[in-house]
Amino acid sequence: MQERIRAWMHEHTEEAVQFLSALVQEASLSGQEAEAQRQVADKLATLGLTVDTWEPGGEELIRHPYFCSPRQLFSGSPNVVGVWKGTGGGRSLILNGHVDVVPPGDTSRWTDDPYSGKVADGRVYGRGTTDMKGGNVSLLLAIQCLKELGVQLKGDVIFQSVIEEESGGAGTLATVLRGYTADAAIIPEPTGMKIFPKQQGSMWFRIRVRGWAAHGGTRYEGVSAIEKSLLVIEAVRSLEQKRNETINDPLYAATPIPIPINIGKISGGDWPSSVPDLVVLEGRMGVAPEEELDAARRCLADALMRIEDDWLRDSPPELEWFGAQWVPSSLETEHELMNCLVDAYRNVTKEEPVVEAAPWGTDGGLLAKVGGTPAVVFGPGTTALAHYPDEHIEIARMMTCAEVIALAVLQWCREEK
Amino acid sequence: MQERIRAWMHEHTEEAVQFLSALVQEASLSGQEAEAQRQVADKLATLGLTVDTWEPGGEELIRHPYFCSPRQLFSGSPNVVGVWKGTGGGRSLILNGHVDVVPPGDTSRWTDDPYSGKVADGRVYGRGTTDMKGGNVSLLLAIQCLKELGVQLKGDVIFQSVIEEESGGAGTLATVLRGYTADAAIIPEPTGMKIFPKQQGSMWFRIRVRGWAAHGGTRYEGVSAIEKSLLVIEAVRSLEQKRNETINDPLYAATPIPIPINIGKISGGDWPSSVPDLVVLEGRMGVAPEEELDAARRCLADALMRIEDDWLRDSPPELEWFGAQWVPSSLETEHELMNCLVDAYRNVTKEEPVVEAAPWGTDGGLLAKVGGTPAVVFGPGTTALAHYPDEHIEIARMMTCAEVIALAVLQWCREEK
Repeated sequence: MQERIRAWMHEHTEEAVQFLSALVQEASLSGQEAEAQRQVADKLATLGLTVDTWEPGGEELIRHPYFCSPRQLFSGSPNVVGVWKGTGGGRSLILNGHVDVVPPGDTSRWTDDPYSGKVADGRVYGRGTTDMKGGNVSLLLAIQCLKELGVQLKGDVIFQSVIEEESGGAGTLATVLRGYTADAAIIPEPTGMKIFPKQQGSMWFRIRVRGWAAHGGTRYEGVSAIEKSLLVIEAVRSLEQKRNETINDPLYAATPIPIPINIGKISGGDWPSSVPDLVVLEGRMGVAPEEELDAARRCLADALMRIEDDWLRDSPPELEWFGAQWVPSSLETEHELMNCLVDAYRNVTKEEPVVEAAPWGTDGGLLAKVGGTPAVVFGPGTTALAHYPDEHIEIARMMTCAEVIALAVLQWCREEK
Repeated sequence: MQERIRAWMHEHTEEAVQFLSALVQEASLSGQEAEAQRQVADKLATLGLTVDTWEPGGEELIRHPYFCSPRQLFSGSPNVVGVWKGTGGGRSLILNGHVDVVPPGDTSRWTDDPYSGKVADGRVYGRGTTDMKGGNVSLLLAIQCLKELGVQLKGDVIFQSVIEEESGGAGTLATVLRGYTADAAIIPEPTGMKIFPKQQGSMWFRIRVRGWAAHGGTRYEGVSAIEKSLLVIEAVRSLEQKRNETINDPLYAATPIPIPINIGKISGGDWPSSVPDLVVLEGRMGVAPEEELDAARRCLADALMRIEDDWLRDSPPELEWFGAQWVPSSLETEHELMNCLVDAYRNVTKEEPVVEAAPWGTDGGLLAKVGGTPAVVFGPGTTALAHYPDEHIEIARMMTCAEVIALAVLQWCREEK
């Protein structure tokens, strides 16, 4: 069977590249996913899957404790799910990928149009190729291949093309609330073909540090919010160190800081010769795979409370959680889906896979935490190219990934539950 | 004579308040000084002074090493100088005040219109009352009083109503280049009736600290410009400490930090979950009364060069001097004008004056450094109200100041050179 899969992939490379190229040409930014989703839904229908297209929304979604999105209305932004029903009794599998892409940024830094979908040097170029339409195409290829080779699976395969991953996972949350769960899930985010059974979660925070304004010439009459923010930054640094000292998971052995706390933005003061009375820090807090978001939130709040400084005791830093969040996720490395994937990887590549913990979150956290569907992340894209100019994907890797996933699906879904 | 001066002031308080109120109602922001200057010129003409009104400009001004202004054209922004010629052989005196005011800022924080000129509770309210039209009115009152009391002075009195003090002194520099110098000068900036023979200079700086961008989840792959900027802030702090340890002037005895270096603004990074690759700091460096601006500039540049950090050695902080500067100024406390002022203050108030060094610069630095006219700063306004909402001046203090200055002028200008 493995030989037949490989041959099929070989024959369908050009078709796959054309499909990816067309999908990339649809700039499926948040709010503009409809046309790309139509292409995906058409493909699923052609493959004979039962297609479910709907616009997420409603009170259950918006009021859900894990709902996190800058918008509450998703009209024109459908989710698409395609179900390949098994013959029964087998293990089901969700194959989940997001269709939304991040904005291109400064387009002058792109060699071509960000949505060119250009094919050159064995690569497809454009926003979303690596993150993660290339991965989605790997999933679709795996399904199409098994279908066309006449495979019958016992368990269901549930393909999901979701919106809103980049802003916190409202699309995937909506699939769970619609009833889509399974015995496990694969998410082909750009791991560079590494296998990530665990994923770091993350949350964005904002800290306001207050001072007292004065003229710069008599700065001793004021309290500099910049100087006080240094104490806050030090406290965050030392909290990061403390939290990471407790991480001894071997999956993090190669990671210098498993769950970093990044301060990404600072701004304060409005005049060179005034003592600044406000500094705002914004950052991203990493959450350990087995940690609760709330526990991590408390860690940071406590660290800010414990800063030993008379001024900050009276005017404590104000902590706010805002913007996106990604729920962490953890699958035991001995999980049967891991075995399926690792075996498939070895068989296809003749190499040993790299198994690590992801330094970023995916929708896998929501699948696991809310849907009870444990997830593993494995995809053909390159982490470092995601969100960058001249984003692209290696076609050969996309095909290899499809081959590995086809084998893993075969092994997982043909087994009895 | 002192009794006659006091009686005259008493009789002319209402007239003075009306004049100040009208002057404040002219919003003489940079570029909008013409109407206020016309009022001043009319007043000087009425008093019988020789009035010189001109718009500064030309190569000599613009190319002057001490020229500092955000603009190079001053059409519609005249300087006004009025000369009261002495009988000859006496010491001359410049009485210098600026007519430009800073913007009102957030007008919702003002109780009345910022240019109301409202009179209430023994005060006149409005932008420029304290800084420094109230002081200018004290000067004009002193001249008018001595004139109307029939005083004949040996030395010339040169009254100057200048533009552009708030942005670096181009107006006063233009008076010097036009030939106006004297044996000494009084500037009634808002000292709260303290006498400042020395004034701190200041300059604005901008420091760019570079890092290396990376994703926040793998922040160890980048270099945080925020973390590197902490080293820069520490270096600035320790330079400030070192510089201030060398100041042992008794005039600074009551000043916690005689020449502070204030970091007033910080901004860096553009995304919470990215490692910031640039932080920009902006601040104000205090310059000691006897120090050269260039020497102070070198101090900061050297301190930044000496930071011990491998990254900053390869990507050194970029230092830029921008915006306004004020030249420092220093008059010996035993100078004869100091004696005149201190005596006059004692005689008028029956109290001992506070003699200190100013924590901020004035146009006195330019008068002294470029014009060779040593200056002392003494005025009725309140430092803390300058540039703030609901700026106002105590009418009684403005009158007392006028009385002190009238006596000092009398004593200074009646003496032989």
